[in-house]
Amino acid sequence: MIAFERIALIGIGLIGSSLARDIRAKGLAREIIVSTRSPETLRRAEELGLGDRYTASAEDAVRGADLVIVSVPVGASGAVAERIAPNLKPGAILTDVGSTKASVIAQMSPFVPENVHFIPGHPIAGTEKSGPDAGFAGLFKGRWCILTPAEDADPVALDKLTQFWQALGSRVDTMAADHHDKVLAIVSHLPHIIAYNIVGTADDLETVTESEVIQYSASGFRDFTRLAASDPTMWRDVCLHNRDAILEMLARFSEDLAYLQRAIRWGEGDKLFELFSRTRDIRRSIIEAGQDVEAADFGRHALDDKD
Amino acid sequence: MIAFERIALIGIGLIGSSLARDIRAKGLAREIIVSTRSPETLRRAEELGLGDRYTASAEDAVRGADLVIVSVPVGASGAVAERIAPNLKPGAILTDVGSTKASVIAQMSPFVPENVHFIPGHPIAGTEKSGPDAGFAGLFKGRWCILTPAEDADPVALDKLTQFWQALGSRVDTMAADHHDKVLAIVSHLPHIIAYNIVGTADDLETVTESEVIQYSASGFRDFTRLAASDPTMWRDVCLHNRDAILEMLARFSEDLAYLQRAIRWGEGDKLFELFSRTRDIRRSIIEAGQDVEAADFGRHALDDKD
Repeated sequence: MIAFERIALIGIGLIGSSLARDIRAKGLAREIIVSTRSPETLRRAEELGLGDRYTASAEDAVRGADLVIVSVPVGASGAVAERIAPNLKPGAILTDVGSTKASVIAQMSPFVPENVHFIPGHPIAGTEKSGPDAGFAGLFKGRWCILTPAEDADPVALDKLTQFWQALGSRVDTMAADHHDKVLAIVSHLPHIIAYNIVGTADDLETVTESEVIQYSASGFRDFTRLAASDPTMWRDVCLHNRDAILEMLARFSEDLAYLQRAIRWGEGDKLFELFSRTRDIRRSIIEAGQDVEAADFGRHALDDKD
Repeated sequence: MIAFERIALIGIGLIGSSLARDIRAKGLAREIIVSTRSPETLRRAEELGLGDRYTASAEDAVRGADLVIVSVPVGASGAVAERIAPNLKPGAILTDVGSTKASVIAQMSPFVPENVHFIPGHPIAGTEKSGPDAGFAGLFKGRWCILTPAEDADPVALDKLTQFWQALGSRVDTMAADHHDKVLAIVSHLPHIIAYNIVGTADDLETVTESEVIQYSASGFRDFTRLAASDPTMWRDVCLHNRDAILEMLARFSEDLAYLQRAIRWGEGDKLFELFSRTRDIRRSIIEAGQDVEAADFGRHALDDKD
């Protein structure tokens, strides 16, 4: 099924390059144009054969494209929109994959011509790796993609973009941008910030050496290091562009942690047991919803055994 | 290699049952005695064929055993020691697998006869699952086991216990109990407490529904739910029995989080970028040290693809 004659991918990192591979594998476009500012990344994308044409110029890339997908750190969204706006094809669909939505809309909307359908999006998928080599076909399979269209968005364009994500194996949900930002603040931004923070804390200790932290990390700590190995530019931008929702969730988290800390200090085993019990159910629900693997330890031992 | 004539396993959960399977697989004992207080768990252990004899009485189990391994929640250590002490065989080695060491030593030592070698231990291995069905042979392979012998511990007994863990594929380190408790507070206890806390926070929100949290958990949150699905009794006991070290690490963590929160509030991108960059190195070191898999996303996609 050729869904689009020409798709332009602006940014070709983990998400952009996974899209390129999936679009190719599923034949969703006759032509894929790949664009990134970094000459090195562009060359690598070409070596990997991710597109049909390659250009360092985003403004050139979008010419004649029916679908333009912007996959850049959210802080760069406004600048990209400003550059590509004059060359966007009338009737084209413009979307993005950014982790924050209200800020991306505020940055991009002013530049989008009236005859272009701007429908912001966010696939809830990824890994801790970055760059065009990190992407792979199937990244979006079984994952959700959230679209945050304006209330007056064109239903035909919205439907077309929905079908595009469904063709990649995603389930599509739509919601208001502000609500998206609150949801993601708790399910994604706070976990990453906490992971970065605890890894930083461990790195700074005087009483425990770094080699001890590394050596004994299989007791829990290593789980956090995966999220804390994510792309620093991307996550700096997320923190700066979803500030209010993140600060709200951080306040809730710290309040709850103070309660837990107090229970530990005063030896209130019942309170600890109550919390430690009810959190088990959430994991079970996540596995039942197909959003994580059931295997113990994320199935790591299966990989370990290959040693 | 028959290392011990008779090994008594007191407690047959994830760790105890993994030990049973490994001891059997590697032929490290002529006879394995399995003991647990719960009749149901004891029956299950027998169905699984984990031992050669089964008894609900810990005091009976240890009779004539050359090696006694106590694998119970750390809060139960003292009571177990009191019960088994009169029947421990002179010259036997008594060890445990508890996640806290100073408290276990304080609880057990008073009951240990002089002619028994008490060498506390802690294998840095496990999963979020519990019970005799959750154990498996190979759990300890490539992982570290920390022993915290007293300064006057018998070198022959220490050597024998070290060889036992090495036979299971573990690397063995020895350190002072207090230092162990500080190391584990940062690499294991704090990560679990933080994971339990964030899952609790998400569960309590009014603005984001539980089904949204579950649906979009693949964006980071699901990683924390694994640790937060760990055994509540075990973790309640850890919190109560390593209180001072945990409170110290919690204070450090909260201090660092306040700094990060302030950087987010004031839009200090450079500070965020600096932290988010240096944490990447630690993950790399952990992978190089063989303490985590290199595959993106813990290799989850390999399992996903089996769908």
